[in-house]
Amino acid sequence: MVINSAGHESGGVAAPATKGNKNLDGHKLLIVTRDDPPADKIERLKSQFSGLKIEHRRAEWATKTLDDWADEDWKDITILLTGNTFPANKEVAPKLQYVQLQSAGANMLLKHPLFTDSNVEFCTANGVHGPQIAEWVITTFLAFQHFIPRYLDNQREGKWVRILEGVHDAVGQRVGILGYGAIGRQVARVFKAMGSDIHAYTLHPRNTPESRRDDTYTPPGLGDPEGQFPSKWFSGETKEELHEFLASGLDLLVVALPLTPKTEHLLGAPEFEVLSKKKTYVANIARGPIIKTDDIIEALNKELIRGAALDVTDPEPLPDGHPLWKAKNVIITPHISGASTEYTNRVLAILEQNLHRLAEGKELTNRVSRKDGY
Amino acid sequence: MVINSAGHESGGVAAPATKGNKNLDGHKLLIVTRDDPPADKIERLKSQFSGLKIEHRRAEWATKTLDDWADEDWKDITILLTGNTFPANKEVAPKLQYVQLQSAGANMLLKHPLFTDSNVEFCTANGVHGPQIAEWVITTFLAFQHFIPRYLDNQREGKWVRILEGVHDAVGQRVGILGYGAIGRQVARVFKAMGSDIHAYTLHPRNTPESRRDDTYTPPGLGDPEGQFPSKWFSGETKEELHEFLASGLDLLVVALPLTPKTEHLLGAPEFEVLSKKKTYVANIARGPIIKTDDIIEALNKELIRGAALDVTDPEPLPDGHPLWKAKNVIITPHISGASTEYTNRVLAILEQNLHRLAEGKELTNRVSRKDGY
Repeated sequence: MVINSAGHESGGVAAPATKGNKNLDGHKLLIVTRDDPPADKIERLKSQFSGLKIEHRRAEWATKTLDDWADEDWKDITILLTGNTFPANKEVAPKLQYVQLQSAGANMLLKHPLFTDSNVEFCTANGVHGPQIAEWVITTFLAFQHFIPRYLDNQREGKWVRILEGVHDAVGQRVGILGYGAIGRQVARVFKAMGSDIHAYTLHPRNTPESRRDDTYTPPGLGDPEGQFPSKWFSGETKEELHEFLASGLDLLVVALPLTPKTEHLLGAPEFEVLSKKKTYVANIARGPIIKTDDIIEALNKELIRGAALDVTDPEPLPDGHPLWKAKNVIITPHISGASTEYTNRVLAILEQNLHRLAEGKELTNRVSRKDGY
Repeated sequence: MVINSAGHESGGVAAPATKGNKNLDGHKLLIVTRDDPPADKIERLKSQFSGLKIEHRRAEWATKTLDDWADEDWKDITILLTGNTFPANKEVAPKLQYVQLQSAGANMLLKHPLFTDSNVEFCTANGVHGPQIAEWVITTFLAFQHFIPRYLDNQREGKWVRILEGVHDAVGQRVGILGYGAIGRQVARVFKAMGSDIHAYTLHPRNTPESRRDDTYTPPGLGDPEGQFPSKWFSGETKEELHEFLASGLDLLVVALPLTPKTEHLLGAPEFEVLSKKKTYVANIARGPIIKTDDIIEALNKELIRGAALDVTDPEPLPDGHPLWKAKNVIITPHISGASTEYTNRVLAILEQNLHRLAEGKELTNRVSRKDGY
């Protein structure tokens, strides 16, 4: 495995030659999706790449093998857009160069022979969730700040009653984003537009303009590709470094990390103790096990934190009667913040961008690192 | 009355001389507010203007005369920050030059002798509401789009149930802003950060970069002072012009107009008919009577529009049992969207900005036009 200067393995892409193959002559794309891809998007690809052949098969996300598809049919496929449907190995699909996943995670294929025993490029759908998840974070936080759930209750009763507590608007509030990736960067963009201050936390230090950049996919004009929004950057793997960030005067903490052995149970009683100084509101749109459930229940019920918005929980689904449902000042939704009617269109936008890069012999966007597994 | 080139009357400011009076020597400011103004803000003013004397009296917003204040006490006052407390006329306060109001409207003083029979400058608090009202618009709209009220109901039951309808996120959605003032401009800023397209409607045409500017107060970095966000501008006083705007493919219509004889009942059945083509969601944060109540109830219940968020209603308060409470897909709050714990600080920021302008002999910000009455 060759590691290039950016820390990614070099793909070593096989024939047909791609450098300067601007029409993608000799290429064949198989699209495996639940619904038919939008016809206008397919026409758009065809009009841009005259040499590209395109096939489509319908399959549910989790489908591993296609009914109307023989091993022989894989022979000519060079590009695959898929949920969880892969050829058994590289021998079955000898020309396969690039697999575009429909998920932001790649965990389902980490032990697949096509991943472990080939140099096929895998690219995630990282970035397709940014807008809708950022909106979820903003609407749950602002709804809490502006007492919307209580006003909805009053509306149900038909009561015109003003809540006399003060509304703290977002101007000058400080938002800490734990994991400054595609989602965190779009959260930052919207809070900046509302006048808030941004603190970012990343695993590795980002001390230079170059290191603050993020070249993964983002819908045009959104996110923070240059890393321009945070007023302060924090990083590290130690509890001390994490606590320094958590103690930096945060009004809102947005948890936007991947779940890994390092991040499991990252936030527990000691962290809520740190957050209690500012009574930081906590939003989790990442994965439930990053937060210790018993500890956040206690932090909420003792009002160490002002409240929490949780789209993910541990366990999940959250069982009927679980005490988290009734914790003080919590908003819970059933892991839906990533849903959007634009999901497929955004995956196709990543595919299109990568087809251009393939045609020009450039490094693909959103490549899965075989070292890190994401 | 002298009209200057910007269409405002010239103030004709009286002694003490202000041009070049950078310390505000000879000036005396009376602050009449409900609570004590923050001490650090007063110190800040004193440190900037060494000649300025400052007095403070507590009074409720609606208080017309101060108990511990004689006519004699007005003699030296040159600047007044107030809710509804004014000297009886100019003779009582002969040195008064500039009155800073705490409200965005000036309707309460339009018949006051100090307004009608003097050349004292009155300035509104226009701009202090932008952030919090924009947040209210965004949270109610996004909450509706992301089914938050329904998820709150499920949470109350302790049910982990995903709603299967698609979530349309704000990327590429078109937001029409009827009345592109301080509030509308901040709404535009946040929706642009979420990837939406903006259409603006104003009474007078804005065909040049100069005409699109808004030099009223806005918190630093917020709003749209240059008028850069709308992709398309509409204007006019006729129904045809209004309908052209309403028919321009709006996903969300934000009503942010002042209530005047021209805007009362501006939106009724014919307008909802136009909006029905796109099933436009309607947000009203202006004044209830701009919309005909019976007509919006019908538009909601017949699902001509997808929904509505109403912070203002007609009548107001909305009586118990009024059919608007139970109209389909409506969110109602009791005229609270303008409340913010930062309200007084923002009024003091306008005062500070205007003291600098006064010290430099410049035209004040947020001046009330004696012609238009706002």
